[in-house]
Amino acid sequence: MGEPREEKGDTRVPPSLVRYELLHEDASGTRARRGRLHTPHGMVETPIFMPVGTVGSVKGVGPDELLTLDAQIILGNTYHLMLRPGDDLVGEMGGLHRFISWDRPMLTDSGGFQVFSLSEKRKITEEGAAFQSHLDGRKLLLTPERSIEIQETLGADIIMAFDECPPSTESRAYLEKSLARTTRWLHRCVKAWRRERSSLFGIVQGGMDPQLRKAHAEEVCAVDLPGYALGGYAVGETPEAMYEGVAYSAPLLPRDKPRYLMGVGTPVDLINCVEQGVDMFDCVLPTRCARNGLLFTTEGKLVIRNATWAKDPRPVDPACSCYTCRTFSRAYLRHLFVAGEILAMRLNTLHNLHYFLTLMKQVREAIAEDRYASFARDFREKARAQEAERTRTK
Amino acid sequence: MGEPREEKGDTRVPPSLVRYELLHEDASGTRARRGRLHTPHGMVETPIFMPVGTVGSVKGVGPDELLTLDAQIILGNTYHLMLRPGDDLVGEMGGLHRFISWDRPMLTDSGGFQVFSLSEKRKITEEGAAFQSHLDGRKLLLTPERSIEIQETLGADIIMAFDECPPSTESRAYLEKSLARTTRWLHRCVKAWRRERSSLFGIVQGGMDPQLRKAHAEEVCAVDLPGYALGGYAVGETPEAMYEGVAYSAPLLPRDKPRYLMGVGTPVDLINCVEQGVDMFDCVLPTRCARNGLLFTTEGKLVIRNATWAKDPRPVDPACSCYTCRTFSRAYLRHLFVAGEILAMRLNTLHNLHYFLTLMKQVREAIAEDRYASFARDFREKARAQEAERTRTK
Repeated sequence: MGEPREEKGDTRVPPSLVRYELLHEDASGTRARRGRLHTPHGMVETPIFMPVGTVGSVKGVGPDELLTLDAQIILGNTYHLMLRPGDDLVGEMGGLHRFISWDRPMLTDSGGFQVFSLSEKRKITEEGAAFQSHLDGRKLLLTPERSIEIQETLGADIIMAFDECPPSTESRAYLEKSLARTTRWLHRCVKAWRRERSSLFGIVQGGMDPQLRKAHAEEVCAVDLPGYALGGYAVGETPEAMYEGVAYSAPLLPRDKPRYLMGVGTPVDLINCVEQGVDMFDCVLPTRCARNGLLFTTEGKLVIRNATWAKDPRPVDPACSCYTCRTFSRAYLRHLFVAGEILAMRLNTLHNLHYFLTLMKQVREAIAEDRYASFARDFREKARAQEAERTRTK
Repeated sequence: MGEPREEKGDTRVPPSLVRYELLHEDASGTRARRGRLHTPHGMVETPIFMPVGTVGSVKGVGPDELLTLDAQIILGNTYHLMLRPGDDLVGEMGGLHRFISWDRPMLTDSGGFQVFSLSEKRKITEEGAAFQSHLDGRKLLLTPERSIEIQETLGADIIMAFDECPPSTESRAYLEKSLARTTRWLHRCVKAWRRERSSLFGIVQGGMDPQLRKAHAEEVCAVDLPGYALGGYAVGETPEAMYEGVAYSAPLLPRDKPRYLMGVGTPVDLINCVEQGVDMFDCVLPTRCARNGLLFTTEGKLVIRNATWAKDPRPVDPACSCYTCRTFSRAYLRHLFVAGEILAMRLNTLHNLHYFLTLMKQVREAIAEDRYASFARDFREKARAQEAERTRTK
């Protein structure tokens, strides 16, 4: 525990890095908070949902459309980008912002999660994770130092510490060993961090065990960083177990720093976790579901390929103001999807992202107006009723 | 030859149908002409290239982007639409314009060409073409009457006569038989045509035989129709054979009606055939090539996946003002294409369509300014030099 104390109050941390401004805490009995992230590429209103741009593109839409949707910040995946086109190339091209033509804030993950979930023959040692590329079998090594180097080369506004997210099926003994290593890796990340334009966030792991979570949160938060994340949720546990875990873990993170719940989630997940004080989310759900034809609406989920919609002249969601809903019928969208037209991917993605981003806007308004408790309750009840109706009519 | 004479000057033809306005004939020694098509959905400046929207979508782009590109008229394929989603459904949804959200002019083909090129077990009789759907093997019959009925239900501004486009390998005896039948089919089309909002164009066939072309042109043009097309070109013959054929055939069509060369072509094809007095073109080339990563530029063709572009910060075409060229580098476009990202299809398609539509704008300007001969000569010379350079550096 020597290094984190050395880092605390490190005079090398310039004020130009990401700063969290807490605007308002909900007064209706929840832990929800309204805030702002000030970053080198502009401001982000929180709570926020971040669309995922895996390999330098939010699948199905362009940066012009992300601006129209008013996406405030997007995510890039270090693992994917290091393999293709390669971090060196992106660096030579002026960094990820310039390469993909996105001049709003961006966040990259550490690559760790994908090494453990996508690559073949991975082996974790104290040094880092040795693995084979899932694309061409190349043997590679990702270490805390290398992950930070890649992320700073990519030049995201927010970069993540290299951690292990162990499967919840592992023994407590393994989890303890893993957490201790993740803490040591965090210290190595902090040491490697150049602090020039990218702000490093730490990640708290610990699975579903409150004791381990608390201990790890203490270790991670002992390092003075611009923000903190909760990892190891939405990795296979039930939604209830996740909500319980987040309710316990979120308050362990400092009040004056942004709290990022990684890889979450469904609309109800967002509502419930904002309630526990989470500020930032990312998930492939809206974009991936769009490509599979599952659309999120204020009236529940809609499977666009269903024959029910073949002659339906209504928009996907009559209450939605996105380009897709303003312009096209369910009948046309179903036709495009069934015919395998590329346009289906784009229109579905536009709609789902609009749904998620609008939901978060409503979340921010409800917090600002001190009515988040009723907002969240109403949303959950409506979602429950819609799901019951969906199951009934199946 | 009774029916066509009956149709000539038919008082049932309302003036609301498509009307061609000949604005100017090039005075630099070519047959190029500058004109306008007045249609129920607005005006089209000719010569024009029409992007192909096979099954109700110009592959890779949306109607919003086609407007930004200033596409003046697009094409829909009767064969594809009758199979999926079905002409009845499109009719119930208010017609093709409304179904796909496109309120500019539209043209549909007769379905004949695809029946002969895509379907299985097709059999041509006097009645029409019996075939099996390439999608599900359904047995269907397309006749002149049915083709016109489908096209009028779809509601395109311009609809095409049902014809046979026989392979150029057929015997002269077969060609003569086919042409006579296509003429009889034309008369049946004219009889079936309701003349409400769709304008019927006749199609002249005759392969590469001047005698047959001339005879068929006389038969077809004896029917007073809003426009005429040349079919049976770009079906496997050499470009030189096509140019020779079009040079012979285009002047056989009436001067006061629009002339449409079906399924053509490459940029040089467009330049050469405008020179012979053609006003309208359609081809899947720009959109299909885009999806395969072949981009048209003022400096020649560019294969975006080539490793040459991996770190090239330049736009695809520095002289191009499309969204893709204004925003992204060759390096990024190559990355998107190699990574199989959907966005690659969209950005490539936007660029190629912009190239084709801009080329036709320049064509119109050159004609208006009586310098089409030199414009066409310069274009051909540049294209030849570029192709030589491409072959040399391969």
